[in-house]
Amino acid sequence: MSVQDKVSSIAERYKNIRSLTEKIVYPLETEDYMVQASPDASPPKWHLAHTTWFFEKFILKSYLSQYKELNPHFDYLFNSYYETVGAFHPRHSRGNLARPTVKEVISYRHHVDEHMQKLIGQMNPEEHTDLKDLIEIGLNHEQQHQELLLTDIKFNFSQNPILPTFIKDKDKEKDETETIPYQESTTVEMEGGLVEIGHSGDVFAFDNEGPRHKVWLNPYTLSSHPVMNVEFMEFIADGGYERPELWLSEGWEHVQKEGWNAPLYWKKHGDEWHYFTLTGERKVEKYEPVCHVSFYEADAFARWAGKRLPTEAEWEHAFELVKVDGNFLEKEMMHPTWEDISIHGPFNKVYGDVWEWTSSAYSPYPGSKPLEGALGEYNAKFMCNQMVLKGGSCATPMSHMRATYRNFFQPEKRWQFSGFRLAGDL
Amino acid sequence: MSVQDKVSSIAERYKNIRSLTEKIVYPLETEDYMVQASPDASPPKWHLAHTTWFFEKFILKSYLSQYKELNPHFDYLFNSYYETVGAFHPRHSRGNLARPTVKEVISYRHHVDEHMQKLIGQMNPEEHTDLKDLIEIGLNHEQQHQELLLTDIKFNFSQNPILPTFIKDKDKEKDETETIPYQESTTVEMEGGLVEIGHSGDVFAFDNEGPRHKVWLNPYTLSSHPVMNVEFMEFIADGGYERPELWLSEGWEHVQKEGWNAPLYWKKHGDEWHYFTLTGERKVEKYEPVCHVSFYEADAFARWAGKRLPTEAEWEHAFELVKVDGNFLEKEMMHPTWEDISIHGPFNKVYGDVWEWTSSAYSPYPGSKPLEGALGEYNAKFMCNQMVLKGGSCATPMSHMRATYRNFFQPEKRWQFSGFRLAGDL
Amino acid sequence: MSVQDKVSSIAERYKNIRSLTEKIVYPLETEDYMVQASPDASPPKWHLAHTTWFFEKFILKSYLSQYKELNPHFDYLFNSYYETVGAFHPRHSRGNLARPTVKEVISYRHHVDEHMQKLIGQMNPEEHTDLKDLIEIGLNHEQQHQELLLTDIKFNFSQNPILPTFIKDKDKEKDETETIPYQESTTVEMEGGLVEIGHSGDVFAFDNEGPRHKVWLNPYTLSSHPVMNVEFMEFIADGGYERPELWLSEGWEHVQKEGWNAPLYWKKHGDEWHYFTLTGERKVEKYEPVCHVSFYEADAFARWAGKRLPTEAEWEHAFELVKVDGNFLEKEMMHPTWEDISIHGPFNKVYGDVWEWTSSAYSPYPGSKPLEGALGEYNAKFMCNQMVLKGGSCATPMSHMRATYRNFFQPEKRWQFSGFRLAGDL
Amino acid sequence: MSVQDKVSSIAERYKNIRSLTEKIVYPLETEDYMVQASPDASPPKWHLAHTTWFFEKFILKSYLSQYKELNPHFDYLFNSYYETVGAFHPRHSRGNLARPTVKEVISYRHHVDEHMQKLIGQMNPEEHTDLKDLIEIGLNHEQQHQELLLTDIKFNFSQNPILPTFIKDKDKEKDETETIPYQESTTVEMEGGLVEIGHSGDVFAFDNEGPRHKVWLNPYTLSSHPVMNVEFMEFIADGGYERPELWLSEGWEHVQKEGWNAPLYWKKHGDEWHYFTLTGERKVEKYEPVCHVSFYEADAFARWAGKRLPTEAEWEHAFELVKVDGNFLEKEMMHPTWEDISIHGPFNKVYGDVWEWTSSAYSPYPGSKPLEGALGEYNAKFMCNQMVLKGGSCATPMSHMRATYRNFFQPEKRWQFSGFRLAGDL
Repeated sequence: MSVQDKVSSIAERYKNIRSLTEKIVYPLETEDYMVQASPDASPPKWHLAHTTWFFEKFILKSYLSQYKELNPHFDYLFNSYYETVGAFHPRHSRGNLARPTVKEVISYRHHVDEHMQKLIGQMNPEEHTDLKDLIEIGLNHEQQHQELLLTDIKFNFSQNPILPTFIKDKDKEKDETETIPYQESTTVEMEGGLVEIGHSGDVFAFDNEGPRHKVWLNPYTLSSHPVMNVEFMEFIADGGYERPELWLSEGWEHVQKEGWNAPLYWKKHGDEWHYFTLTGERKVEKYEPVCHVSFYEADAFARWAGKRLPTEAEWEHAFELVKVDGNFLEKEMMHPTWEDISIHGPFNKVYGDVWEWTSSAYSPYPGSKPLEGALGEYNAKFMCNQMVLKGGSCATPMSHMRATYRNFFQPEKRWQFSGFRLAGDL
Repeated sequence: MSVQDKVSSIAERYKNIRSLTEKIVYPLETEDYMVQASPDASPPKWHLAHTTWFFEKFILKSYLSQYKELNPHFDYLFNSYYETVGAFHPRHSRGNLARPTVKEVISYRHHVDEHMQKLIGQMNPEEHTDLKDLIEIGLNHEQQHQELLLTDIKFNFSQNPILPTFIKDKDKEKDETETIPYQESTTVEMEGGLVEIGHSGDVFAFDNEGPRHKVWLNPYTLSSHPVMNVEFMEFIADGGYERPELWLSEGWEHVQKEGWNAPLYWKKHGDEWHYFTLTGERKVEKYEPVCHVSFYEADAFARWAGKRLPTEAEWEHAFELVKVDGNFLEKEMMHPTWEDISIHGPFNKVYGDVWEWTSSAYSPYPGSKPLEGALGEYNAKFMCNQMVLKGGSCATPMSHMRATYRNFFQPEKRWQFSGFRLAGDL
Repeated sequence: MSVQDKVSSIAERYKNIRSLTEKIVYPLETEDYMVQASPDASPPKWHLAHTTWFFEKFILKSYLSQYKELNPHFDYLFNSYYETVGAFHPRHSRGNLARPTVKEVISYRHHVDEHMQKLIGQMNPEEHTDLKDLIEIGLNHEQQHQELLLTDIKFNFSQNPILPTFIKDKDKEKDETETIPYQESTTVEMEGGLVEIGHSGDVFAFDNEGPRHKVWLNPYTLSSHPVMNVEFMEFIADGGYERPELWLSEGWEHVQKEGWNAPLYWKKHGDEWHYFTLTGERKVEKYEPVCHVSFYEADAFARWAGKRLPTEAEWEHAFELVKVDGNFLEKEMMHPTWEDISIHGPFNKVYGDVWEWTSSAYSPYPGSKPLEGALGEYNAKFMCNQMVLKGGSCATPMSHMRATYRNFFQPEKRWQFSGFRLAGDL
Repeated sequence: MSVQDKVSSIAERYKNIRSLTEKIVYPLETEDYMVQASPDASPPKWHLAHTTWFFEKFILKSYLSQYKELNPHFDYLFNSYYETVGAFHPRHSRGNLARPTVKEVISYRHHVDEHMQKLIGQMNPEEHTDLKDLIEIGLNHEQQHQELLLTDIKFNFSQNPILPTFIKDKDKEKDETETIPYQESTTVEMEGGLVEIGHSGDVFAFDNEGPRHKVWLNPYTLSSHPVMNVEFMEFIADGGYERPELWLSEGWEHVQKEGWNAPLYWKKHGDEWHYFTLTGERKVEKYEPVCHVSFYEADAFARWAGKRLPTEAEWEHAFELVKVDGNFLEKEMMHPTWEDISIHGPFNKVYGDVWEWTSSAYSPYPGSKPLEGALGEYNAKFMCNQMVLKGGSCATPMSHMRATYRNFFQPEKRWQFSGFRLAGDL
């Protein structure tokens, strides 16, 4: 590719990813942009502004000569957690910020986009590799917030007794799966041994994904499918949420304190489980991967089933050669699906649909080095009390996913599209 | 007045009060309607809807035949605290309700207004006295929320580091008062004796204002003016916020826990005190009544000054014959003022400007009877751990005020336009 | 009385009151002295030390020349809440103080007692009236802690699943009252008018009891008896704890948050109510005054019964001439009783048995003056968010009680021997 | 060994370990047994009873025919957290249990000890291997509580402003180390490779220590010494507690919320750091291992030093052949020491002195199996949000320690004798 082509390609990619964000929020009313129904979630408006600030703060201010920030307040308001670049607005009160308005935030986006395009137009991707890398980080960052926008919108909407519908459902024939003679989940044996996991090479990856390193794996098994709703209903019916012996101690505390008796968004109407989705409330689809469970619930289910969760290394080793496709954001389903759209050998739904909890705590890889400077705060400082999830979900942009990708959340979180797959010892 | 004139007068009054609410929120952006920056405050949108629900719930559903509620969800969403008419949305999460949108709430208002006018058109005020009374309560309720709209908007805006301006300042000559040879506050002697306070007669009053009853008052003094900012600055400068002996025990706990060192909205820039107002941040005006102080601060100041706060009976007895005028909502100042716009004998700023904390706990009057039914919850169930305030503020509609009016808040609250006047023994 | 007789009388009184404290705690094991099962309660050891510190701090250090404090740490450890004389150990962690040991605290008591007797021996009660007054305050303070010792011990014991017995029950014939044809509670009419309440004269009273002042009372009624357990059971059976319309708003919050469904210490075994007492757990005695209810419960019961609680002035006016006798600490019953041991005209159990909640917030009397100096903190700084109780209980020393006495607690407190009597309008 | 010898040896070992517990608490006053100054700590009396309950509950009730529990309440009171064997008293209110008294708890110990000796006398260790294993678990459990007794006593004493001394200091010459030309800490290179860690074989180990399994280790370095106070003081002086970039995000939250500015128990008197120890408060000894730091502080120090913490596997692989000796409980120092009492090749203080935080989350080993039944709750259910510590401390019984031993605490805990050793990459 010529330099010019490379520049065009970057410019195009920048434009596409940034506009996808705006496409995602298109169905929102102005009021919807303001809601922060949980301290974990952020108002949609804040996501729009924060991802923009990221480009302004870490790129334009340093690389575009004579760039002037649009509004000096934004540096405080839209910094998420970068302690080393200054103070920031408390996370839990992002929902109190009526100003700047949505319209002003969109203007902010356009202002920064124009200047980013100007900067990209001036750059030489072969020389300015640090700038190129920063843009790539900024775009991956934007993609992460595309997923968070959807999970936060879902949570916000669910907290309104009116249960608003985010988008119309594309799939009218949901209920037929009741009678589908479905491919059963099977147990697949994996050899293990001294394997390698983690990122290497030139393709972009976050600093937490490398370096590539050896790991010893005992022989193990993996289920062909993520655990499905129908299986999870059996766990519930068998008293899964009432038997402390199935639970980690802290998990059991959450069950009792929060009154958990089913995945997040599930409600029983008479004898039937229903759930809230981005397309409205409906009957739980039996053969979809179970979703919106915490690590604690995944772990308890596995114990109940006489299995365990896979380690990150087991998961990554098994699936590093599997093609990344499936039910991703681009499919616009906004929900896991029962459809077989990503079969690879014995395995189904490896990528997309639901993030899969692993039994691995989120820790640094041997020899890992966080990025220099403020961006070193991006990932490394969260390496404690969080568990790794793999594979992406129906809300993840497909181009954002890879086998080495390490998502991470505290074990009690449920508002992400999080499910799990079982593993075992051989 | 003929029956027809009475009906017209009610219809007119209904229309005027309801449209004043909409006039108040006119400067808001859509996003501003969503903010609930404190559990004490409610989002402006919620105020608009709740006052409307009040008419629908307590009047239209019972009195207008074949009236259908606009949306069955609203009964849950916009009930504030009436336990006896059903469940209600938790107060602290009113800010999470993006839907109904502002536009839909305005439609709800218009829907109810149309039907209220229809009902008023059909009524005979001489026969339907219960309906007439309910309408009067609904309108007084609306007026209370007009004030709350302004105090909540002020608090919400103050929590945004951008410090947005709600409305432009009408008064350009603020700073001149520095040099005004001001009428000094004097101490006025009151005779006391066996007096009467409380409401009687046909004019509307809330159920908590009556019955009229005898109270014995020892001779006492009252200051001619509410305590002014310049005096409160002396208190601060004299270590008022650092000397536990000046404070009630619970007040001192608040000072320490909340880090109070000045009234709410005050900040020191260098040597100068500034405050946030609905017209923006500016230098504290010395000769205005001090505002946004808690009962605890008022009480501590009084102790520091060798005085005390007046009881409710002392206040009401002194001022029951004073004409109700002054710096009220209609003046659109949105802030207490130094101007002498309501002098009555030796007294200044009796009504309007700032609510005046009294030393009286909010308790039922001898022989008092709450309204029958759900509206009995309006006032009576709050008669514990709250203190009475008198006289109205710059955010109170003037027609809403009278000497017997009993406002009440917990002693630590500061976001209302609350000040105080000193009293003493003779 | 000669000066010498007066001195002897003070010395004797000092000795008697101080030794009663030690008699009260006699049944305790060393471990019992350490428990603080609620932040409201204090460990018995702390009470023993604090009342001693009171004499050391406010009397010996100022009045006995060359007196040396026994241990400089005690000033910090055993100051309760006197901000103006120095820092103090946080109330909620009094139970963490293993040292000084019980034995050392008893030595501290003896050390101070010896020096107090020395000081009393040297004084001239006619000249040293300030000292005489301070001793009187110290002794009344000691008596207050005698009651608190018992209520705190009761609470501490109740929190131990073993339910230890503090003392053996003296009264073996409890159950007979089932069949006693009991004197029914009647409604007594009171004339009211312009009356006087509050303390005057030379007999000791706390600073919060005066000055004597006029109050206007409308005609009112008072029940002849405090509300009894059998009546309270009817309230419970009628859904009293499930009907929000009976409750003050904050009271209802407590019901829901704390799961109140009966007075403190009550438990249902099958169909029968039992309660925990200082003499062990036993069946609720129907014809005793109900006890260990909060102001909120008293107020809700009154509303359910179509009555109200009396104001402090109504109570005091009615009973100021009634002789102070009844079921007090000296009777060693440690519990209210069904026995008629204090009938005065139509009234029963006016003094002793249970403190009676009034509807009056604890506020300063007109013209009241707290004591000078640190002892001004004794009462005045708590005059907010507390309600007045009158009459003393089975845990109050009889000599400590009088009509003007003002006890006060927050309206949600239940661990005192608190009951109530109904009032009404005429 | 003959069967008889084996029995005698078990009986002897039982007696020795049980009496060591009683020796440890010998210096306590009765009052000291009651204190629970933090929900993390338990009152000494509770430790004495709980370890006894462990033998009664899991052994005597099942294995000694006709054994009767001493007191049916104890099953509820002294169960710590075994959900599968019944309800238990809330952890945070163990300090409210005055009864049973200390004397009664000692009797409980003797009662159980007698019956345990009777049971041991009857057993055939070769046949009754399950019973033998349970006794071994019970004794190891007792030893864990010996350490907890000391750490809890230390915390309890530290919360008393009197700062009581638990035992007299045996070491009079502390201050000389100022001038000791000390052996410098060096960096030792380790080869790594495919190694094995974890327990195997017949010697007792907890279920969480096995099975032995392969782990790949990149080449790494380890410091010869744990980090010393003098080094930690440099970290403090260099703003270690003020620089967010050195901290994990949750660690930084703790620094700010708790106001951490030094290890637990450290206080600055003028320019000198002092700490509270079980032998009283004294000047910080420079050349001792730093102690009472959280994982967060260890991790932040490592980042500041350009190093990292070792993983559990790195630590265990390096030290599995090192002889277990050093400054353990039996030395009765009750504190880490500067003395070289355990040098092994280049390494110093590997075992004893301070537990060493590793960077490894506490997770199950591949193929691990918790014990069957209630004792499966012993370790496995805590495998989340905790970090592994290795090597034992000055409060650990020496016979309790081994290379594979996995201690675990939440990363913010500081009241254990916890320090750390640095590692690095090669």
